[in-house]
Amino acid sequence: LNPLYAELPTTIFEVMSQLARTHEAVNLGQGFPDDPGPEDVRRKAADAVVNGWNQYPPMMGLPELRAAAAAHYRHWQELELDPDAEVMVTSGATEALAGALLALIEPGDEVVLFQPLYDAYLPLVKRAGGIPRLVRLEPPSWSITREALTAAFSERTKLVLFNNPQNPTGVVYSRADLALLAEFCVAFDAYAVCDEVWEHVIFDGVAFTSLMALPGMRERTVKISSAGKIFGMTGWKVGLVFAAPPLMKVLSKAHQFLTFTTPPNLQVAVAYGLGKADDYFTGMRADLQRSRDRLAQGLAGLGFSVLPSAGTYFLSIDLAAHTNAADDEAFCLDLVRTHGVATIPVSAFYAQDAVKSVVRFCFAKRDETIDRALERLAKVP
Amino acid sequence: LNPLYAELPTTIFEVMSQLARTHEAVNLGQGFPDDPGPEDVRRKAADAVVNGWNQYPPMMGLPELRAAAAAHYRHWQELELDPDAEVMVTSGATEALAGALLALIEPGDEVVLFQPLYDAYLPLVKRAGGIPRLVRLEPPSWSITREALTAAFSERTKLVLFNNPQNPTGVVYSRADLALLAEFCVAFDAYAVCDEVWEHVIFDGVAFTSLMALPGMRERTVKISSAGKIFGMTGWKVGLVFAAPPLMKVLSKAHQFLTFTTPPNLQVAVAYGLGKADDYFTGMRADLQRSRDRLAQGLAGLGFSVLPSAGTYFLSIDLAAHTNAADDEAFCLDLVRTHGVATIPVSAFYAQDAVKSVVRFCFAKRDETIDRALERLAKVP
Ligand SMILES: CSCCC(=O)C(=O)O
Ligand SMILES: CSCCC(=O)C(=O)O
Repeated sequence: LNPLYAELPTTIFEVMSQLARTHEAVNLGQGFPDDPGPEDVRRKAADAVVNGWNQYPPMMGLPELRAAAAAHYRHWQELELDPDAEVMVTSGATEALAGALLALIEPGDEVVLFQPLYDAYLPLVKRAGGIPRLVRLEPPSWSITREALTAAFSERTKLVLFNNPQNPTGVVYSRADLALLAEFCVAFDAYAVCDEVWEHVIFDGVAFTSLMALPGMRERTVKISSAGKIFGMTGWKVGLVFAAPPLMKVLSKAHQFLTFTTPPNLQVAVAYGLGKADDYFTGMRADLQRSRDRLAQGLAGLGFSVLPSAGTYFLSIDLAAHTNAADDEAFCLDLVRTHGVATIPVSAFYAQDAVKSVVRFCFAKRDETIDRALERLAKVP
Repeated sequence: LNPLYAELPTTIFEVMSQLARTHEAVNLGQGFPDDPGPEDVRRKAADAVVNGWNQYPPMMGLPELRAAAAAHYRHWQELELDPDAEVMVTSGATEALAGALLALIEPGDEVVLFQPLYDAYLPLVKRAGGIPRLVRLEPPSWSITREALTAAFSERTKLVLFNNPQNPTGVVYSRADLALLAEFCVAFDAYAVCDEVWEHVIFDGVAFTSLMALPGMRERTVKISSAGKIFGMTGWKVGLVFAAPPLMKVLSKAHQFLTFTTPPNLQVAVAYGLGKADDYFTGMRADLQRSRDRLAQGLAGLGFSVLPSAGTYFLSIDLAAHTNAADDEAFCLDLVRTHGVATIPVSAFYAQDAVKSVVRFCFAKRDETIDRALERLAKVP
């Protein structure tokens, strides 16, 4: 048995969701909305499964979905993508990420990653044979510095794995931050694998720029998106990958032997959904922003120190304001067991030298869910 | 870029399906049925996508699907499986296979494989760090011998990757064949990863036995099944994995970072489908057997030498009967381009020392599709 997997714990999101079920807790842990997702998109999938094609679609994805994705990203992010050579459909963003790492890394290559990191990243990099170089980010700003990048990049850097907007922090990196990272990628001739699954979930009119759009990055970036996040249906597992043709050729070879294809009925529905009018996307953001504010105000009212969130389904509190011996894991376990609210300890996103004082809440929930959680949180001593 | 993927060709199934589209050929290449699949199962999925849960299901799969799978395999194969600890749902059998190989192989481990081999096998074994040991099988019997296994197994054998019923040959291995293979697995303390996706597609009343059911194999076998094959909806990409709890624990760690989960709406429908009465499964087999016979008789009538097929959607012809300088690839390319029938050259299933005289046909097609192909084949000189 490969010792990497033999020693790996079950993902924290699954663990907390199971604890939530056991303790009948309000689940603000694993990131998924209360809302069932847009009904017209779901009806489209239902129609396709009854009246459409249920056999293998093309390995790269349905042509109509690749065309819809190219049009969507031209409109929203001013990216010009060739639907025939630069767009691929995967069975979720996790598969896209696994495939990209297996395709790009050769054993011994160095990979730059940022802590806090999504928990799939490190095992996938290691299983692909990569040597991780971790950049440690800290609250409250989680900012990336030139010093940290200088320490992390080397002549052996093959790629950087970058998540923006960032889970769990809710940071949306500015164009200046991206320019700094791009400068290092170009200087060290490194690829960038960009997990941009939260790109549509941004608030307060903040601008999102893909790292792919920065000068020098178009040919060296793998951009990963997720229909599950775009439409708030996290179970759909339809991912999108964008890369220049020479990179895409290699990525497709990894994909063809990881899942080969993705259910065509869901692809048809996602193609339809990507063509929805602007007001759908702005409405989705406005709804989530209202929920973010409701939870943030409630938590602040209870005396918690709330960190800002500019994107994602998540906001965090920093326990360090109350105690300098904070233990986020103990806090979260007590919270779900004793008070019936599931959350995620941000230390789970660190592989070493963890920040132990930050707790993540998912706010993509109905008002009554948020209010119920706040009532329970009011009893925390 | 990892050279393994950089040098890999696009899978032959995708290549031939694209040639079929270009040349408006009758596509008897890639294995998928003409039939749209059972309507009640598709309606179940449609209902679930509109009225059910579209967020992350549990990482191991919906409890109702795991329970249905355990009941189904108890009934059909007399396997006793604990739905909570021995059953996992994946995004297709390819993901199950990739996960199993990544989880079980440590770099340097030897892996025994049989040629002809499904084209995902070798790249996946190599990317996981395994050293392939190839057993070469030959027409017309494709039989596995003690001599061949003695040459392939060694003290360094970590696992054997075995496909039964076998694609592309249509062989269903007998209990005696399985006992021979099991003897070697036990003697060399090797795992068996069993691609048994064609287990339901068997003809002439032949018995299928899972390698897992052989003495000494229960604890060392990973059994992989496919709802896409069971219900003839190859685009659904719902796989099933069965293994003893200590093995499953490690397999689940690979799965959680390959796709994490599989669309819950399709899982609900597969759970329903697995509970269908016996006559559905026997009827499906009878229909396919009729199609097999129609194509086999037609090909024989045209003077082709048809090899027997006891399972899968496939039968083959052996060109060597007509010419001893047969080139299956040239034959298949000419057939799709000049005569408008897409097939698969079986040499594509060999990594070395290829058998070059065998051509695979998919017969999971409507009578008129088979007849149209036969009309075109009649013009082959
Ligand atoms: C794959 S479960 C985790 C979902 C998610 O993105 C999160 O909660 O951070
Ligand atoms: C993944 S496409 C190949 C489908 C199949 O099993 C075959 O044609 O052999």
